[in-house]
Amino acid sequence: MIYGVESMYAFEIERFVREDLGEDDDSTGIVPEVPASARIVCKEDGVLAGVEEACEVFGYFHAIAEKRRADGQKARAGDIVLEIRGAAPDVLRAERLALNFLGRMSGIATLTAKCVAQVPGGVRVAATRKTTPGFRKFEKKAVKLGGGDAHRYDLSSAVMIKDNHIAVMGIDGAITAAKKAASFTKKVEIEVESVGDAVLAAELGADIIMFDNMKPNAIAKGVKKVKGINAGIIIEASGGITVDNIGEYGRTGVDVISLGALTRDARWLDFSLDMKVIK
Amino acid sequence: MIYGVESMYAFEIERFVREDLGEDDDSTGIVPEVPASARIVCKEDGVLAGVEEACEVFGYFHAIAEKRRADGQKARAGDIVLEIRGAAPDVLRAERLALNFLGRMSGIATLTAKCVAQVPGGVRVAATRKTTPGFRKFEKKAVKLGGGDAHRYDLSSAVMIKDNHIAVMGIDGAITAAKKAASFTKKVEIEVESVGDAVLAAELGADIIMFDNMKPNAIAKGVKKVKGINAGIIIEASGGITVDNIGEYGRTGVDVISLGALTRDARWLDFSLDMKVIK
Amino acid sequence: MIYGVESMYAFEIERFVREDLGEDDDSTGIVPEVPASARIVCKEDGVLAGVEEACEVFGYFHAIAEKRRADGQKARAGDIVLEIRGAAPDVLRAERLALNFLGRMSGIATLTAKCVAQVPGGVRVAATRKTTPGFRKFEKKAVKLGGGDAHRYDLSSAVMIKDNHIAVMGIDGAITAAKKAASFTKKVEIEVESVGDAVLAAELGADIIMFDNMKPNAIAKGVKKVKGINAGIIIEASGGITVDNIGEYGRTGVDVISLGALTRDARWLDFSLDMKVIK
Amino acid sequence: MIYGVESMYAFEIERFVREDLGEDDDSTGIVPEVPASARIVCKEDGVLAGVEEACEVFGYFHAIAEKRRADGQKARAGDIVLEIRGAAPDVLRAERLALNFLGRMSGIATLTAKCVAQVPGGVRVAATRKTTPGFRKFEKKAVKLGGGDAHRYDLSSAVMIKDNHIAVMGIDGAITAAKKAASFTKKVEIEVESVGDAVLAAELGADIIMFDNMKPNAIAKGVKKVKGINAGIIIEASGGITVDNIGEYGRTGVDVISLGALTRDARWLDFSLDMKVIK
Amino acid sequence: MIYGVESMYAFEIERFVREDLGEDDDSTGIVPEVPASARIVCKEDGVLAGVEEACEVFGYFHAIAEKRRADGQKARAGDIVLEIRGAAPDVLRAERLALNFLGRMSGIATLTAKCVAQVPGGVRVAATRKTTPGFRKFEKKAVKLGGGDAHRYDLSSAVMIKDNHIAVMGIDGAITAAKKAASFTKKVEIEVESVGDAVLAAELGADIIMFDNMKPNAIAKGVKKVKGINAGIIIEASGGITVDNIGEYGRTGVDVISLGALTRDARWLDFSLDMKVIK
Amino acid sequence: MIYGVESMYAFEIERFVREDLGEDDDSTGIVPEVPASARIVCKEDGVLAGVEEACEVFGYFHAIAEKRRADGQKARAGDIVLEIRGAAPDVLRAERLALNFLGRMSGIATLTAKCVAQVPGGVRVAATRKTTPGFRKFEKKAVKLGGGDAHRYDLSSAVMIKDNHIAVMGIDGAITAAKKAASFTKKVEIEVESVGDAVLAAELGADIIMFDNMKPNAIAKGVKKVKGINAGIIIEASGGITVDNIGEYGRTGVDVISLGALTRDARWLDFSLDMKVIK
Repeated sequence: MIYGVESMYAFEIERFVREDLGEDDDSTGIVPEVPASARIVCKEDGVLAGVEEACEVFGYFHAIAEKRRADGQKARAGDIVLEIRGAAPDVLRAERLALNFLGRMSGIATLTAKCVAQVPGGVRVAATRKTTPGFRKFEKKAVKLGGGDAHRYDLSSAVMIKDNHIAVMGIDGAITAAKKAASFTKKVEIEVESVGDAVLAAELGADIIMFDNMKPNAIAKGVKKVKGINAGIIIEASGGITVDNIGEYGRTGVDVISLGALTRDARWLDFSLDMKVIK
Repeated sequence: MIYGVESMYAFEIERFVREDLGEDDDSTGIVPEVPASARIVCKEDGVLAGVEEACEVFGYFHAIAEKRRADGQKARAGDIVLEIRGAAPDVLRAERLALNFLGRMSGIATLTAKCVAQVPGGVRVAATRKTTPGFRKFEKKAVKLGGGDAHRYDLSSAVMIKDNHIAVMGIDGAITAAKKAASFTKKVEIEVESVGDAVLAAELGADIIMFDNMKPNAIAKGVKKVKGINAGIIIEASGGITVDNIGEYGRTGVDVISLGALTRDARWLDFSLDMKVIK
Repeated sequence: MIYGVESMYAFEIERFVREDLGEDDDSTGIVPEVPASARIVCKEDGVLAGVEEACEVFGYFHAIAEKRRADGQKARAGDIVLEIRGAAPDVLRAERLALNFLGRMSGIATLTAKCVAQVPGGVRVAATRKTTPGFRKFEKKAVKLGGGDAHRYDLSSAVMIKDNHIAVMGIDGAITAAKKAASFTKKVEIEVESVGDAVLAAELGADIIMFDNMKPNAIAKGVKKVKGINAGIIIEASGGITVDNIGEYGRTGVDVISLGALTRDARWLDFSLDMKVIK
Repeated sequence: MIYGVESMYAFEIERFVREDLGEDDDSTGIVPEVPASARIVCKEDGVLAGVEEACEVFGYFHAIAEKRRADGQKARAGDIVLEIRGAAPDVLRAERLALNFLGRMSGIATLTAKCVAQVPGGVRVAATRKTTPGFRKFEKKAVKLGGGDAHRYDLSSAVMIKDNHIAVMGIDGAITAAKKAASFTKKVEIEVESVGDAVLAAELGADIIMFDNMKPNAIAKGVKKVKGINAGIIIEASGGITVDNIGEYGRTGVDVISLGALTRDARWLDFSLDMKVIK
Repeated sequence: MIYGVESMYAFEIERFVREDLGEDDDSTGIVPEVPASARIVCKEDGVLAGVEEACEVFGYFHAIAEKRRADGQKARAGDIVLEIRGAAPDVLRAERLALNFLGRMSGIATLTAKCVAQVPGGVRVAATRKTTPGFRKFEKKAVKLGGGDAHRYDLSSAVMIKDNHIAVMGIDGAITAAKKAASFTKKVEIEVESVGDAVLAAELGADIIMFDNMKPNAIAKGVKKVKGINAGIIIEASGGITVDNIGEYGRTGVDVISLGALTRDARWLDFSLDMKVIK
Repeated sequence: MIYGVESMYAFEIERFVREDLGEDDDSTGIVPEVPASARIVCKEDGVLAGVEEACEVFGYFHAIAEKRRADGQKARAGDIVLEIRGAAPDVLRAERLALNFLGRMSGIATLTAKCVAQVPGGVRVAATRKTTPGFRKFEKKAVKLGGGDAHRYDLSSAVMIKDNHIAVMGIDGAITAAKKAASFTKKVEIEVESVGDAVLAAELGADIIMFDNMKPNAIAKGVKKVKGINAGIIIEASGGITVDNIGEYGRTGVDVISLGALTRDARWLDFSLDMKVIK
């Protein structure tokens, strides 16, 4: 219940369906309209995401999908995730798209969960905007299902001042402009590469400070300095962090660790669908 | 020139842009309208894809992007890929989407090229329909740019008879139906798991035989048998193939090796954009 | 079951509905919400197509349409095709669009069936891409319902080398490029205007040879020559063929006869809807 | 300048383009990027329509199309309609869609012009809503280009009381309701099958009376009666009228003759495109 | 039943929903899935509009809305308009959009009803095209629900000759062109600023004369003159008319009074939604 | 430069254009293609908004619009806002839509500016989500142009806990859930109706407290209490505030005053377009 609208928009699901069917589907057209049952099985251990979307894909084709595992749950290799009944051609038309949702989204949820497991409780593991064009909604949702934080959704969410902003306006100029021109409802975050800049930003009233591409040691020092100025400020680490080194960053005292790797490096989780005719 | 329409459709690019901008972009809104120049640099060795798309994203915002490297070329860490000029806010609005196209697509092209390098000349390395929903066009194109074959685009392209079809109709029934009901302009491919089934399918007139989840040894035997029946038939290997074992499959005599890994396992290639104000 | 997705996409049907309703429909707005029944009657002999689509149009307006005849069946003048019940305004809003689907699609199916009846069993009668912009899906489907073959759906289906390709690349260049650059899953067809060119194309490995604008006699000779080279090659005749002369082409030994006339010359079949109030 | 917006909407033209290209166009992908010139030639005598649309299709692909004949003009077999220059693949991508617009629209314009030629000056020849779903805008425009009248565009244009309305509300009830509930900006037309009903409708204040399915003789009598009541009323004949019998109806004194045949029976006009490489 | 299609198109309602939800709705995401009931109460006296639309918004989220008052009815402050049951998050997701439809549309209906009450029976109070871009359908419908006339919907409805047309073509030229080039199914209206021009227009056969920006006195004189020429002509007053002075215009003998104020000056009617958990 | 994307999306502008033109625009179709110039004049004093959008509408029709006044500037009755040149029919097709953008948006900007003028410097005047469905982007932008704050754009922007959330979860439950489940990048705002609840919310860590429907006196007391707990917290007043009483609220010490009236009560500002032919 924390993942926004549960269902895809009607025109979205049709766009995805259309991409996989084309306009003259003889592949499924040759299959007789017999009743069939099918199972989707998870073939690797992981955290599930995309189950809701897979159900909707089957529902689009009037097949009935019952969940045996839910989004956000852990699954083991061999677990049945969905049981499906419907006309054989309908099941086949839905198969690939449903599996693609499951594979991509569960891959991200699984990697996120691994990262979360390596940092102390209370430290958030967050995504970035490094998402597949057109599929952000589902990739951000998968991060949440793996226990992570979606971070800002798009440029209109929080104001984030990055290196290229600073190149134009300076730290002072950018924070001042953001606090004046952006809505009071938005947080102002700034990306810094030194403790000095972090201190400056904190004094100028930034809500969130992100230490970018800094070593864990340096970050730990920065955290102390900045929290000394404003205990309520949120501190984030980012840049070059992966599932392999996230633990070190988790011990620096930061509140949040964000990593593009959650969506950039995630391999798909493997699922398969087996169908048989109901006699 | 072998990659379909060069440009994205206008409503597609707007959909992608909108996903990243939202409707109230204060992040870029605070940046003054000063002229800026920027560079996109490749930070790892790889094969480029998405360069064309990145250019179009900058063009959408009326920034000018000049290519220093082209789609399909190899790039080394440190190579400049694009040089850009435009108003600072326009460059910043395009930045993330352009990098996301480059990162995802070049990751796939790079992995494809690695696979191609491990098989004998003339053996095709092909993608599957295991693609990110809504982004298939670009992932299939990236495979081509890496030297691979897109395989069938969707269910309406060639007729492909898979295990679940056979479960309903049998090999004989499915091939007969396909050759009768599908347009004469489409090839009929069938997925088999034994040499016996391959022989049967060849005799029934399949255009392409795919050996699914079989060991290289068994496949090599199958190839001989089937080519003996029909020298012109195309033989494909698939199932469990990765960049690590593709070499073995390449020596079995098959014409094509298809692997979901090209799109499922590909990590993004890393790129960055640095901007400065033109004084 | 061989006609692709049975139902129109939701946004498609809405687009069609909107075209006929506009935004301020006073014509139907004046009609009271009384229960009504209606019949759609076929007023000429023909082959039915568009019945499925007509049902969906009524369904869109929550009227219930029961089929008395099905797509692909022959109907005689006076036959009831659909019986409908619903609120009078709903039936009236659906009327014109439902009849337009039936009229246009059945006209094509009927002409196709006439052509099919004049060629030997086993010879396919195929459509072309000469279809009304935006309505191809339904015109290709109508051809299938009349017993014909849809031929390639669009430029991405099979590779077809036509006169204008040959003007640029030559026969040899074009076939070689197609076999190299196009996916192995696609057939390569070439349009030729002489037996010599056909022989050349066959030797270069074309999957389908189309004799364009040639006399039946010349085609018959060409068929023998080409089948002598490759018995499995598919031969198609096209150009200037109509329902009046298709019989001659059918006796030349070709596998397929394609004619733009199926969609260009088809007159609509006539249908009417009579409604009465249920007292 | 009497045909509404000259250009197609951007998303419309993309929808049409996409229908013909698909997403993986190897057919054109194999063609080298060489400069080419081409001509579209009209192969039958007729009245041109769709020239504007064809130009836009070429323009969409950045090819330059110059008009040698304009919409609404007569063309003779052999006349050059458009001269085109552009990259060879671009010309080929635009070819089929441009020809489909020309063929379908000019076919309708030509048939309309034939009908117009057979009725006295001042008698309008009008279309109906019997148009190909999704293509009404272009078919109505083609009727205008042939010298005809588009009639009402959709259910929201004028109020038209047809047999099925009368079955529910009676003539009196329907006209009264229409004059009360519909906007004062809309005309009220009624379809009648007898002179008596026409008289009643005229007395109730209908703006247009349509004699449906009546013989020319009976219509002529009806015209006199009704014009006697209200000289300003518009009288229309419809039902069973074709290019072969329209002359008789034209001599009955009616103001308008509408016939579904303009769009239902129109055969396409034949055009071809020949391209050559510019050396 | 006089308001066109009762339901919004599926893609319209989704567009509106999406505007208010965004893609990452944590605001509602934190609310537990408990059953809830809610009421929408009208907080000011007025005429209701948007009730149908509000119901559809709740229906979109699978909440059940029962009407206690209907579109077009008067409501008093404190009246319950809708009672709703559904999961708490679903009710909350629908709330704002449903209230926005009700508030904007009822505001217009209420102002329209006030205007209607001040003119003699039989005089129509009509809207203009001064509507919020993208929301015309609902604003025109609200005018109808308040007892008004929608006037022409768009430029394609009736032909309206305004001052800027006359500046180009003159009164004579414009009316002549309109009667010749526009479909016979459309009325021709002209905007004049003097009695002399009105007489000219009536003699040239205009169907509707609009007196623009003239004093009630002058209009009354014009009405007599023009009706003397053609008793059946429709006369409209417009320009500078508001709820405060419409009574004077109503006594001039015109058939219609149109005022942009219906949509430009209408304040929203106030509604609120109170929800409680069902225990 | 603080108003998001400057230009409308292509498909948006086409949707708006289409709404006003329909598909068969004879009104403009009768106008000859002569060169014309035109002016848009502001007829009342006010603050301009929609100038950018009006320019784009003219640009869509290939007319050239030059700004004489810019968005956000004050205009006096009689001021020329835009000078336009183009073909007469093109200017006429753009006229109504351009004026509708100007009228609605400038009306909102003007009312906002009046409110801003009545509160002390530094107090923000903010909009709500009470916007016309489908037109929020432009109404929020108009508020900004009048000197106001857009407040959160949609449910996905900041988390806002309102009375109906509290009815389900309590203040404590809701704030706790929001701080845990929502992204760390979002602020948490809560609506309270007593000083006690405000204190509780401040202690629980809310970022913004909104005093809803409270008297200025009570609010002033609340501000002191809450700022005592957390000087950095943002305090907002809302409920029943209009241009007439906003001054009182401005003196309570709050940081922000939000009022639905900005978009609900704003009358349009009046503009007109006069065109003449260029001889």
